Amino acid sequence: MAEKHVVVLGAGFAGLNAVRVLSREPSLRVTLVDRNNYHLFQPLLYQVASAGLEAPQIAFPVRAFLRRHKNARFLLGSAEGIDAEAKVLMVEGKPVPYDYLVVGSGTRTNDFGLPGVAKYGYAMKTLDDAMRIRDRIISAGEEASRTADPQRRKALMTIVIVGGGPTGVELAGALGEVRRHVIPRDYPGVDLSEVRIILIEGSDRLLDAFAPSSARYAQRFLERLGVEVWFGERVVEIRPDGVKLLSGKFIPTFTAIWSAGVTGQGIPGLPTTRGNRVATAPELYVPEHPEIYVAGDMNSLEYKDGRPYPQVAPVAMQQGRLAAQNILRHLHGKEQRAFRYFDKGNMATLGRNAAVAEVKGLRLTGFLAWAAWLGVHLYYLAGFRNRLMVLGNWAYSYFTYDYAVRVMHHRHEFPALETQAEQAGELVNA
Amino acid sequence: MAEKHVVVLGAGFAGLNAVRVLSREPSLRVTLVDRNNYHLFQPLLYQVASAGLEAPQIAFPVRAFLRRHKNARFLLGSAEGIDAEAKVLMVEGKPVPYDYLVVGSGTRTNDFGLPGVAKYGYAMKTLDDAMRIRDRIISAGEEASRTADPQRRKALMTIVIVGGGPTGVELAGALGEVRRHVIPRDYPGVDLSEVRIILIEGSDRLLDAFAPSSARYAQRFLERLGVEVWFGERVVEIRPDGVKLLSGKFIPTFTAIWSAGVTGQGIPGLPTTRGNRVATAPELYVPEHPEIYVAGDMNSLEYKDGRPYPQVAPVAMQQGRLAAQNILRHLHGKEQRAFRYFDKGNMATLGRNAAVAEVKGLRLTGFLAWAAWLGVHLYYLAGFRNRLMVLGNWAYSYFTYDYAVRVMHHRHEFPALETQAEQAGELVNA
Repeated sequence: MAEKHVVVLGAGFAGLNAVRVLSREPSLRVTLVDRNNYHLFQPLLYQVASAGLEAPQIAFPVRAFLRRHKNARFLLGSAEGIDAEAKVLMVEGKPVPYDYLVVGSGTRTNDFGLPGVAKYGYAMKTLDDAMRIRDRIISAGEEASRTADPQRRKALMTIVIVGGGPTGVELAGALGEVRRHVIPRDYPGVDLSEVRIILIEGSDRLLDAFAPSSARYAQRFLERLGVEVWFGERVVEIRPDGVKLLSGKFIPTFTAIWSAGVTGQGIPGLPTTRGNRVATAPELYVPEHPEIYVAGDMNSLEYKDGRPYPQVAPVAMQQGRLAAQNILRHLHGKEQRAFRYFDKGNMATLGRNAAVAEVKGLRLTGFLAWAAWLGVHLYYLAGFRNRLMVLGNWAYSYFTYDYAVRVMHHRHEFPALETQAEQAGELVNA
Repeated sequence: MAEKHVVVLGAGFAGLNAVRVLSREPSLRVTLVDRNNYHLFQPLLYQVASAGLEAPQIAFPVRAFLRRHKNARFLLGSAEGIDAEAKVLMVEGKPVPYDYLVVGSGTRTNDFGLPGVAKYGYAMKTLDDAMRIRDRIISAGEEASRTADPQRRKALMTIVIVGGGPTGVELAGALGEVRRHVIPRDYPGVDLSEVRIILIEGSDRLLDAFAPSSARYAQRFLERLGVEVWFGERVVEIRPDGVKLLSGKFIPTFTAIWSAGVTGQGIPGLPTTRGNRVATAPELYVPEHPEIYVAGDMNSLEYKDGRPYPQVAPVAMQQGRLAAQNILRHLHGKEQRAFRYFDKGNMATLGRNAAVAEVKGLRLTGFLAWAAWLGVHLYYLAGFRNRLMVLGNWAYSYFTYDYAVRVMHHRHEFPALETQAEQAGELVNA
């Protein structure tokens, strides 16, 4: 059997798990392609944005991962397209021929075409995004501390988070703790009522993947922490100086964080369906090109009630593994298997001793859910050093009530409050 | 006694130590001004550049420091000038009046006016500088791994460090260990002879603040590690594709790190003397404006043999303290004291179990010096969390031979090798 070349696009949860399986077959040559030189542990991204963790602690170098996988090599680069007929992946102008391709390139932020979201909103998908949010919040705090104009000061101290899914909720909880425990110590004399964290959700509840009782627990926890949770509000525009809602309200702010949705990365040469995801057979290959597998957030396989699988890490890990196993099965002339999701449940953390977790009908809240969340996240975090560092940071934060990584790498400037003057009637700045 | 306002410019070693002393006098109001929101522990900057530490671990937020100093507040901003007659410091267009001013704004990189150094050289003074060097080295390694042209590949894998002082030597040692212990594991099959670290020094020895025997030990250690140490060579130009030396040699490289010298920051309104430093009385005040004190690297007081004090942390700490004590003495009508340097000695680390240290005529090399270096640096590092994290990283690196923070935040692009074609006769790329 001639040596076959498997190209894995994306060093996310799907890609890494595919490589793990593929490396068991020494007759294969594997190339892992990613535009970054690290695997990003996205579930902890919000802790980088909220100054709880250093950025590299949730990033594991791909080459460190590949040390254990001798038949795999790494290619740094952005994939530009697939020529499925020629079986070639184009990476920055260079052709990378493959026998099998595993596409696990994940998602990008979806701005739904709303004006200003891409330009003035702050996404939270990449390490750079998270560091930018941290820089912006610190910059705004410093600017506020020397601003006499009360309207401008309030706008500087208002953070709007759009989207009440796990990312928005977890970030709101972390920033709520920063507001309560860090700001009074860092800015003595600050009027905390001027420091606002507003979580905006279009529906009438948070965390729609969870049971209503978990969502209510999360809402109550956030509100006790001082986070304002606004339901039934939709953003129609983000401006340089604030967020405009469908209801006509305008919130003066310079920090609007967009966690309202994602869409598949897509790649030219691979037709996509809704959500910019790719339709595959239950075995995860693309029917027209059965040597192309799609795993993780990019795959549009139906889960239940006509909805695709949730875009979460466990699905990506399991699909990455199955795609690789099916490649090995195909290689050895065995029958491929259909994807069956082993649902490990859902968890989201809210703050100190508080999380929600749902596993197989069991619903946990509070300390137990929080402890489970810590354990699961430490377990899945790649790299012994990262675990050590994250555990150290968590222990430090737990005992000191501090979020210590308050280092502003790049200072942000803030524009004048223009909408305020024009449309004072719409202002919400109570 | 009316409340007096002391402005401290710079949150470096001088500024922080001045604030510590000034906060003992509750009748004073203190304002600490810095363009960054953190105190940077510069002695460990080279470990950020060489992927041993995360950047925030050597940066301590100024506001965390000020929590213990109730009469002090922080003003983020760049100082633009001093109006000594009006007793006003200008910070980003806003006047900050003072009764006493302590200037501790340190140094910036000195390119000696050499062409290309500012544009194509990589300085190592700021946190951003160190992260940029890390990004560049990783980017160059990835680019090399997919470059077939041997000349270009060698240039990508050549790092030139200019200046054999402590910064250059410590960085060369750390990168030498990366070359030996990390590169063969991350890039299996790489020809280590193509990976070159060249340390260029104009004189005939390293570490001129140390005894010749210490310098020889450092040189031998670096050379055993595979670092090339070139003496008697002076850089005349840094080009996009290499470093040109006075001897006519040209080293093709995209990573020329400039640690050949610094100069005082200077500030309009305060006349400077050689090295852009400010002449003061032995009590550290400026004779023409005795309410202005200058502490640390910016002060040009003579030490011995007509040379000013070395621009190192212990001098800055001691001068910062003395400047503050003299302000308190002046305030209370007491006689001010002249600066007397308590020389704690010199240390520089080279690698695993290897450093040089000189204390009061005692010269240590090897493990003992290394252990002393670790202890002293952990002790002076600000912040319990930072110490915990740095110790964790050091322990991890020590036992695994790994430099784990190999996270490329921003990818660098590399130009074509142009000088090579033009001036092949000058090439040094053996």
